[in-house]
Amino acid sequence: MLNFSLMGAGRIGKMHAKNIAMHSKCNLTYIYDINQDLANEVAKQNEAQVVQSAEEAINSKDVDVVFIASATPSHIDFITMGANAGKAIFCEKPIDLDIENVNKCFETVKDIDVPIQIGFNRRFDNSHKSLKLAKDNGQIGKLEMVVITSRDPEPPGIDYLKAAGGVFRDMTIHDFDLSRFILGNDPIVEVCAYGGQLVSEECRQIGDHDTAMLIMRSQQGVLIHINNSRRAVYGYDQRLEIFGSKGMMISNNQFPTSVEVFNKNNTYAKDLIHFFFIERYDQAYKDQLDDFVNIISSNKKPSVTFEDGRNALILANAAYESLESGKSVKVNFN
Amino acid sequence: MLNFSLMGAGRIGKMHAKNIAMHSKCNLTYIYDINQDLANEVAKQNEAQVVQSAEEAINSKDVDVVFIASATPSHIDFITMGANAGKAIFCEKPIDLDIENVNKCFETVKDIDVPIQIGFNRRFDNSHKSLKLAKDNGQIGKLEMVVITSRDPEPPGIDYLKAAGGVFRDMTIHDFDLSRFILGNDPIVEVCAYGGQLVSEECRQIGDHDTAMLIMRSQQGVLIHINNSRRAVYGYDQRLEIFGSKGMMISNNQFPTSVEVFNKNNTYAKDLIHFFFIERYDQAYKDQLDDFVNIISSNKKPSVTFEDGRNALILANAAYESLESGKSVKVNFN
Amino acid sequence: MLNFSLMGAGRIGKMHAKNIAMHSKCNLTYIYDINQDLANEVAKQNEAQVVQSAEEAINSKDVDVVFIASATPSHIDFITMGANAGKAIFCEKPIDLDIENVNKCFETVKDIDVPIQIGFNRRFDNSHKSLKLAKDNGQIGKLEMVVITSRDPEPPGIDYLKAAGGVFRDMTIHDFDLSRFILGNDPIVEVCAYGGQLVSEECRQIGDHDTAMLIMRSQQGVLIHINNSRRAVYGYDQRLEIFGSKGMMISNNQFPTSVEVFNKNNTYAKDLIHFFFIERYDQAYKDQLDDFVNIISSNKKPSVTFEDGRNALILANAAYESLESGKSVKVNFN
Amino acid sequence: MLNFSLMGAGRIGKMHAKNIAMHSKCNLTYIYDINQDLANEVAKQNEAQVVQSAEEAINSKDVDVVFIASATPSHIDFITMGANAGKAIFCEKPIDLDIENVNKCFETVKDIDVPIQIGFNRRFDNSHKSLKLAKDNGQIGKLEMVVITSRDPEPPGIDYLKAAGGVFRDMTIHDFDLSRFILGNDPIVEVCAYGGQLVSEECRQIGDHDTAMLIMRSQQGVLIHINNSRRAVYGYDQRLEIFGSKGMMISNNQFPTSVEVFNKNNTYAKDLIHFFFIERYDQAYKDQLDDFVNIISSNKKPSVTFEDGRNALILANAAYESLESGKSVKVNFN
Repeated sequence: MLNFSLMGAGRIGKMHAKNIAMHSKCNLTYIYDINQDLANEVAKQNEAQVVQSAEEAINSKDVDVVFIASATPSHIDFITMGANAGKAIFCEKPIDLDIENVNKCFETVKDIDVPIQIGFNRRFDNSHKSLKLAKDNGQIGKLEMVVITSRDPEPPGIDYLKAAGGVFRDMTIHDFDLSRFILGNDPIVEVCAYGGQLVSEECRQIGDHDTAMLIMRSQQGVLIHINNSRRAVYGYDQRLEIFGSKGMMISNNQFPTSVEVFNKNNTYAKDLIHFFFIERYDQAYKDQLDDFVNIISSNKKPSVTFEDGRNALILANAAYESLESGKSVKVNFN
Repeated sequence: MLNFSLMGAGRIGKMHAKNIAMHSKCNLTYIYDINQDLANEVAKQNEAQVVQSAEEAINSKDVDVVFIASATPSHIDFITMGANAGKAIFCEKPIDLDIENVNKCFETVKDIDVPIQIGFNRRFDNSHKSLKLAKDNGQIGKLEMVVITSRDPEPPGIDYLKAAGGVFRDMTIHDFDLSRFILGNDPIVEVCAYGGQLVSEECRQIGDHDTAMLIMRSQQGVLIHINNSRRAVYGYDQRLEIFGSKGMMISNNQFPTSVEVFNKNNTYAKDLIHFFFIERYDQAYKDQLDDFVNIISSNKKPSVTFEDGRNALILANAAYESLESGKSVKVNFN
Repeated sequence: MLNFSLMGAGRIGKMHAKNIAMHSKCNLTYIYDINQDLANEVAKQNEAQVVQSAEEAINSKDVDVVFIASATPSHIDFITMGANAGKAIFCEKPIDLDIENVNKCFETVKDIDVPIQIGFNRRFDNSHKSLKLAKDNGQIGKLEMVVITSRDPEPPGIDYLKAAGGVFRDMTIHDFDLSRFILGNDPIVEVCAYGGQLVSEECRQIGDHDTAMLIMRSQQGVLIHINNSRRAVYGYDQRLEIFGSKGMMISNNQFPTSVEVFNKNNTYAKDLIHFFFIERYDQAYKDQLDDFVNIISSNKKPSVTFEDGRNALILANAAYESLESGKSVKVNFN
Repeated sequence: MLNFSLMGAGRIGKMHAKNIAMHSKCNLTYIYDINQDLANEVAKQNEAQVVQSAEEAINSKDVDVVFIASATPSHIDFITMGANAGKAIFCEKPIDLDIENVNKCFETVKDIDVPIQIGFNRRFDNSHKSLKLAKDNGQIGKLEMVVITSRDPEPPGIDYLKAAGGVFRDMTIHDFDLSRFILGNDPIVEVCAYGGQLVSEECRQIGDHDTAMLIMRSQQGVLIHINNSRRAVYGYDQRLEIFGSKGMMISNNQFPTSVEVFNKNNTYAKDLIHFFFIERYDQAYKDQLDDFVNIISSNKKPSVTFEDGRNALILANAAYESLESGKSVKVNFN
């Protein structure tokens, strides 16, 4: 059994808490949150213990894993503390909004032999994974295009937006990682990004974007398109399409039920798709945890590395450079 | 070029008129209808000539084909006249509502060497045909079940109903023929039929049924299900499913467009399916004509024979016997 | 917390064991199986205790719930023992294969105030439930037809078949209950059944059927069709269609992923559907348990009663009577 | 009746010939092609007369409409001759590959009062049209994104490629027009284009591209994505998606049949989509002709104007400027 300290008991922390508590090889031992009420609530639901400081949560002798689901600015501190304490570390995306901080952290942790995994959950979705596998197996031949549609159901509140670092670092970052996941060892070399302010007045006020389109090119010439919106009234639109010399595969949207309605207005009408990431990626979050437990147990390399987290941020930064310059930007991962 | 006399200029006659007039190997020469206005209208649209009597339409020297789309009670007379005049004959279903009349007619025409084809248009639908072909090719292995869903958009008027001979002879007759088409040389041996009066008060008043379910069994043990309704608010529901040892094939519904709508109520919602037979079986009606033209030109056996028309009526009669007796009824095609 | 004794540790018992062990309000306390090895294995996986006798499992003071997933012939004994011991009882379908035994058991337990729920899991499937709800809400208007497609992926072994009581009592029984679930307080009054021996030589040898089609009629005139096969090579085919005056709803098949494949052979091709009931009805089994826990806690009437179990068996018996007589059979639930 | 002169009897000319000949208000009077054999073949199929010179075809007194489906370099000459002769003119896309030529032609014809329509057939596709209508009706709220997927089944031969003017002027030009069609009076102001050489060695040799991705922005901020490939092994992939504040609509692919196949490899598998434009846009080509006939008869403004043809070319040129400079390019339609 692995003992977990959960850092952060907000929306996503709560979900992780439940998954950890239900996992047959995990104990949810400690919970820390600067908001004590949240910590208490989640602790109660999962029979865990609230601790008063991050230090206690991370350094306690009986803790094996530090699971970081707290606000982004705390990530690097907790990673560093956890690594120094020799704990296995799982950290939600993004590592940090500032690449300098990420680089500095990397210098610190790179020689410490603990597994650090970043929370790009979509890699664990069974449908997206099928496409990756099929691409690697040659099922669609030589990969030529990737098209990612990724739209949230509704824009987040102003407080979230202010802390989020902009749409590319907060939202598109998942799509950057998903692109890199599909491409494997064929790096992205060029990015062109467009942003729009079409949905949320609050977004506009703080200079952020709520609508985005990007094109990227890989070293081997694969073209990748991403489109994002902060508001899709029909649910959390998550589609991944890979196209190659032998065909195409689509990882399409998913639904609460398999019901189809026929009436005098329309036919074969389905439910709204899943509302948001908690519902849509339920299986992925559980398998992500299970995968990390296996990695710790077997001393394997993390499935999503610190470098993966860093590289996604570099792509987000390149996207901002493109947005501001009106040019395609070469990507430099060094 | 083949010269056609069209008998009947009602809803379906009008459609056939247009197809004949557009066909590169056909002239629509004469039109006859007891309702002179209808005849005039269709003649005008298609540059054909109205004649005053059935005799003139059928016996004129320059006529090659008698195409019968008139009211059911006239079918047998026109077939007989046409056959005696040595014309090729196409006759809409059903041949007649009374098996005795059909048998008598058959005795008359069976030794006259003219092609007589019955209008079971569904055999010519490309999707249904694909299933027949796949079944014959062994693509689904040994056939075990057939499921036919066949529902009209709305009940016909009382006048139509009074002359129609009951739902099994008027509507299910298409499904009987479609079953026989799929089964090929494996005859249906047993029928069990249920009828309901759930939709149309007029239907109930004249003792007819507007809802029906049947099970049939073939000699080789294939089980066939048919369900019918006179009212489907979402359009003309036409589905054919064949199931066997190696899989299943479905000939599903078809649509005016390929549009899918996503909003806050539902997703992937399609159009209403095609409204009725004229729209749904447009391709089938055209290919049915083309097929008959080829048969005449090449002296081949009709694709849908007089016997096919007779056998469908025998199944309808068996269905009524089952409905009245509450028993499964053995079918006798002799 | 409710303490459970699980009777039976076979395929379905194993699944229930896991669900009980994972449920936040349940302890899986005791496991009993005549096959000690099975019991040990499942006990180990779920940290439960194996007991040596049914009596111990059922009568132990600390047991609140007797969960019966053992072989059918043991069901009635365990129900009776559990009821006499004042335990809440959950029993897998069917209660028994012999209606006399069921009636006798009912006489015994009917005056004992314990909740007894029968395992018709499909009532808890979110998609099927949506249809029931929509029908009750009038969303499809007046119900006119129900069409159930229910096909297993492959025939069971000969030992299973010999003990199963025939396809109607073993397999169609789920569809009888699903029909009753949809119909609500409109009872089925008439049954016509066809059986076929098309799939399994073993099935034929013991006089059982592997293919079936049925028509039933409700008191209000709703027509219901069921078709069954013991072998669908593409997976566990589970479709429910309800049709009425305002439209139709289909609870369609479900898939492991939402992947669609396009290549030179076909397009929009999906995965095989879920292999069998464990995968397909995973959500239903969990919610069925959760529902039963709530019923016990709140002293409510079971969602699926002993009478529901009995009525499904009466329909199966009527189906056999129809099969043997070649007639439609009136159903008598008294 | 309108008398047509058809210029060009190649692949697309042949198709237009048939549509003209079948149209109830059109006569296909003359056919001209520099390849006399082609002209003879098409004339024979449609009972038209071959003429020896473009002048004869265009200037003959009995000709009402000049229908230009010849090679691109001849378009401007034929338009000019036709306009000077006072004929109604239909011209296949593109008007010309050189914007200077187009501008010069426009100066000549703009004051001549004849209808000139350009062959952007996709505007007449019922599904795409539904989306345009729905957008105009506010059904999806404020338009925010447009996503166009447009892939040919296989690359054209080297001779075609050499004369085609590059992928943006030959293939993407349809998608530029489709974007403009959807946007209506909201002009495109900015274009960013990526090209790839991933499919066809011949394409690479002549410096053309076989794979492309573009982003465009409209004046009101709508973001548009287009992706193109010269090779999709599953058929002619034509998808149009519009996304707005109240939802999304997709004009999805279309099929020869509505068959779905279920076997041990996959389920719900459909046919290959339509092979290419002749099959896919059959309805659109017919309605395009019908629309033009109505325009001539009623003296209305053409549905697709000379300026529409010119504007699509301006977008193609902007795309090349972006491709070469690696920058987003402002579009100037003056």
